[in-house]
Formats: sequence, C-alpha cells, structure tokens
Amino acid sequence: MPGRRDIEVADLVETARGGPGHRGSPRAVARLISLVEDADGVAGPLLREVMAMLSPHVGSAHVIGLTGAPGVGKSTTTNALVGELRRAGKRVGVLAVDPSSPFSGGALLGDRIRMTDHAGDPGVYIRSMASRGHLGGLSWSTPQAIRVLDGVGFDVVLVETVGVGQSEVEIAGLADTTVVLLAPGMGDGIQAAKAGILEVGDVYAINKSDRDGATKVRRDLRSMLALGTRDEAAWRPPVLAISAQSRTGLDELVESLEKHRTWLAESGALGARRERRAREEIEAIAVASLRARWEQGGREGLDDLAAAVAGGTLDPYAAADALLG
Amino acid sequence: MPGRRDIEVADLVETARGGPGHRGSPRAVARLISLVEDADGVAGPLLREVMAMLSPHVGSAHVIGLTGAPGVGKSTTTNALVGELRRAGKRVGVLAVDPSSPFSGGALLGDRIRMTDHAGDPGVYIRSMASRGHLGGLSWSTPQAIRVLDGVGFDVVLVETVGVGQSEVEIAGLADTTVVLLAPGMGDGIQAAKAGILEVGDVYAINKSDRDGATKVRRDLRSMLALGTRDEAAWRPPVLAISAQSRTGLDELVESLEKHRTWLAESGALGARRERRAREEIEAIAVASLRARWEQGGREGLDDLAAAVAGGTLDPYAAADALLG
Repeated sequence: MPGRRDIEVADLVETARGGPGHRGSPRAVARLISLVEDADGVAGPLLREVMAMLSPHVGSAHVIGLTGAPGVGKSTTTNALVGELRRAGKRVGVLAVDPSSPFSGGALLGDRIRMTDHAGDPGVYIRSMASRGHLGGLSWSTPQAIRVLDGVGFDVVLVETVGVGQSEVEIAGLADTTVVLLAPGMGDGIQAAKAGILEVGDVYAINKSDRDGATKVRRDLRSMLALGTRDEAAWRPPVLAISAQSRTGLDELVESLEKHRTWLAESGALGARRERRAREEIEAIAVASLRARWEQGGREGLDDLAAAVAGGTLDPYAAADALLG
Repeated sequence: MPGRRDIEVADLVETARGGPGHRGSPRAVARLISLVEDADGVAGPLLREVMAMLSPHVGSAHVIGLTGAPGVGKSTTTNALVGELRRAGKRVGVLAVDPSSPFSGGALLGDRIRMTDHAGDPGVYIRSMASRGHLGGLSWSTPQAIRVLDGVGFDVVLVETVGVGQSEVEIAGLADTTVVLLAPGMGDGIQAAKAGILEVGDVYAINKSDRDGATKVRRDLRSMLALGTRDEAAWRPPVLAISAQSRTGLDELVESLEKHRTWLAESGALGARRERRAREEIEAIAVASLRARWEQGGREGLDDLAAAVAGGTLDPYAAADALLG
C-alpha cells in the first residue's frame, strides 16, 4: 500500500496533466514548477518522485526557444505567437526566463503582467522564472520546468530568454527549435555575429519589419548565414519579416516552426538534439549536487581552498585537485 | 637539477613578466594565454606548472570588467579607456571575450583589428578570446587568462564582454570593478532591469551622451539604482555621461575606477571579492575536469544515460546519481 506522500504526488501529477479529453489544472502545474524553483539545484525526494512519474510522458511537446537582444520585442512576439498557436488548437506553456532582480526577489512585474491577452485561457500556461546566478542562467531549473510542461501535456513549450551570447547558446541546447528575433536599429552585422546568433537560430525573424532598415538587416543576415552553409542536407534557417505589434508574418513564422519540427523528425536530428539535451540536463543536475556538497563542506573545504588561492599560497589547479580528491 | 621542461617553463614565465624595470615580452604572454585557450577546460602538466609559478605574483592588478549590450560602444570605449590608462602610466592587458563564431573558428576579425590605436605600444597587450560553448562563456578560460596577465605584471586587466544577462553576472564575479556601459535608444528602464545590470555595476557609464535621450537614460538609471540602495556604508555606483568617440568624460571614468578600487581596499570588500572569485575559479576547474572525465566515459557512461533519459526510461535525477555514483 502506498504511503500518504505517494498518493499526494500521484494526485498532483494527475491533476496537472491535461490532454485531448481533459484540461490540466493550472494550479497543479504551478505547484510542480514551484517545486522545481524551490529546489534551486538540488532536488528533494518529492521532486524526484514527480520527475520519475513524469518521465514516461516527456518528449512529445515541441520545445521552442525564442531569444534576442533587449528591445527587439520578444515579449510582444511571444504574446502574438501564443495567439497563433492557440488558433491552431495547440496547448501552449510559456516560460519567460529572466535574470533575477534584487528588487523583486525574482522575475520582474513587467513580465508577470504583460501577457494579459491570454489570461483566463486554460490552454495557455505562463510562468516567469528567475534565473539564479550561481548555477548559470538556464542550466538547472529551466530544463526541469520544460520537462514538467512537456510531461503534463502541453503541445508546445515556448521558452523566452533575454539573451545575447551565452544564454542564446544555452537556449539552443534546450530547445528543439530556436527562434532568434532581431529588429532594425539594433547594431550592425558584426554586432549580430558577435552575439553568437549565427550559430543558434533555426528560424530568424526580423521584428518591427515595417521600420527603416529592416530590409537591410534581413539582407545582411541572409548573406551572413549563406557564408556558413556547408552541408547540402542541412536545415537552412529562414529569415522572416514579421511585425508582432501589427500581427503580420506570424502565420509564416508558425509554418516555419512546423517545417523545422518535421525536418528534425525526418532527418533524425530530433533524437540527437534530445540526447544532447538529456546529457546537459544530467550533467547540470550532477554538477549542482556536487556544488551543494562542496559548499556545505564549509571551513574544511572550499572556503579554505579559496582563501589559500586568493592569498597566493595555492594555485587553483592544486585547489581543484584537493576539492575533488 | 631541474629537467629541460622546467627550465623552459621558468624561462617562458620570466620572459613574459614585466615590471617597472623591464618590459615583458608580448610574444611570451601570448604563448601563456594560448596554453590556457588550448587547454579548453582541462590543464595539462605544462599549464599547471605555469600557474603554480605565477601564483605568488597574482593579486596586484586591478581587474576591470566592461560590459553592455551590443551597440552601446564597448569596443570604442575600451580603446579610449586604454588610452587614458596609458597616459596615467599603467600597463594594460585587455581580454575581449566573444562567443565563438563558426566562421572564424574563434573571435571575429572585427575585434582583432579594431584597437589599432595601441598597436606597437609595449605597455598594452590585447587579446580576443573565444568563449567556448559547453563550459560556459567566461567560466573557465577567462579567469585563467586574467590570472596570467595579473601574474606577469599588468597594472590593469580590462575584460570586455558582449553581455546581457548571464555574462554580466559572470563578469561581475571575475572583476574587482565592473563597468556597465549603456547608450540612449537601447530600450527602456524595464529592459535595462531585465538585463540584470542593476545588480552588477560598480560604475555606470552612459556612452554617446551627446545623443538624444542620454539625459533620460541617466536619470532613469539613477532613480532605479537609488531604489536598490539599502546599506549606508555600501558603495554607491556613479552614473557617468561619456562619449568614447569624442573622448569626453573619460577622466571621470578613470577617477571612478580608482575611487572604487580604493573603496574596495579600505572596506575589506576586495579580499571578499577575491575569495569569491577564487571559489568560482576552483569550482570551474573542478567541474571542467569532472565533465571531461564523464565525457570520456563514452558508451558505458553519460551517452547511455542520456539515451535512457531521452527515451523516457530513466529520469534525469536517477541518471545524475548513476553518473556520480
């Protein structure tokens, strides 16, 4: 006979799950994600049970990453894209990942309130997540939250990150399909390349495409992407012109996302991406649990080693050996 | 009697070191940093010897991080700031950290060629570094390269990162003093806060301050920073107006950097920052060496676990346990 907590966990997971026949409870989904957030790198027995129960159901959602520099209109685009996906009958979970702010103790009000278009729609679940400093922006909690939304039956999990550089590389590691959003007036071609975006996008969308300079951004990006194409069989990322504000180009965006998903499945790339994602997830969990152990080591451990390195009596390699050995 | 390699390492380190009496050889410095870059997360015996030899000399450089969104003028500002510091007689090492590009196999030409103002000045050493994907942007090689430049005798080590979000948090972890660069027209206040900059800056500089909107950016930023100030004894980050292009406001910038350095030393914060930096460095080295072990584990190890997790037969926590146990 199962103990009381087993029953509770099973109930919570069952209540959170939605599907063609029944809606999941947003409140139960929220509780599951709170478990992830509260764990902050090291899962307790409750979260471990939840993850073990969800595991067989994970893998059917289309995980879409949406990233771009501040000011390109990520929030507006996410909002508009959710609307398009809803019209196509998809249940959509959204994770908005932001660097923590000392003022809010978490994600900012600006995010929490922005997507009121979909408030009250049971087919949309939106969550702002704080990315905690130490463990890396997306490295621990975001994959776990994706896993929850996928496992409870959302058709699409949309992860929006404020990102230039590293977090774009991270989002590409997490998503099946990465959308890079650009806008005119955000810096020239070299700036775009510096931000690492040429490596990570499966679909590029130039937002605010009714503004001056949009055609140039699109042309420049296309020629930069063409330089990088070597493999004939490879996916060629489309460069779309959209305007999230006036809701133009969104049908092409959704179509490109679906084409990419089909390509992933047919080329075998989906399995490879998901194995890579699983590797990173396993590593992130393992590293987080090691770090927690090291930091609990206190005065005999990392603190003493750090003081010795800062004082110049030990080099960091010898210190790392001591930590591991 | 030392073996041949010991003599070579000692020579290389000695040749690289510069000081009041003698100039270090830029070629030797370059070789040391190449050792760091080539190691890519796991140091061989040569690099370990170098680091052990440098260790007693590390800690006197002022490590300054300079970060900001693409388009704010980081490169121009770095160039101008190096000029100011040179006029004050400081030897300056610059690390320009960029996400890797598939086109260059490393840092982009744009960076390598941009700082010609200082070409041929033996008191300036400039290096573009590729930030490699897997181990995190700055987490492994940048602290090691800072250690090299500090250890061979540069008075200031300036680390420029393309950064919004995570890499800004990382740079703040590495630097004694973090300069956050902004510019008018780069998004409103909430956007700035989203990028996490309110947590990381010791000095804020509004570049292109002759343009429309600069006064508003400065005022908004000041009031946002004022909200966060709780501790009377804490450093209050100044918000400066500069123009790197027309070289105005740079003397105030240098003065603020020195004031902050003095504050760090007098308040005891310098030691705390450096211990924190040492902790992160030790952890990064330890994690990198573990990851290398895991990845060499091949089919018996991480690959199998990742396939099981991707296939839904194992949850990632159980996989992480298996990896660690």
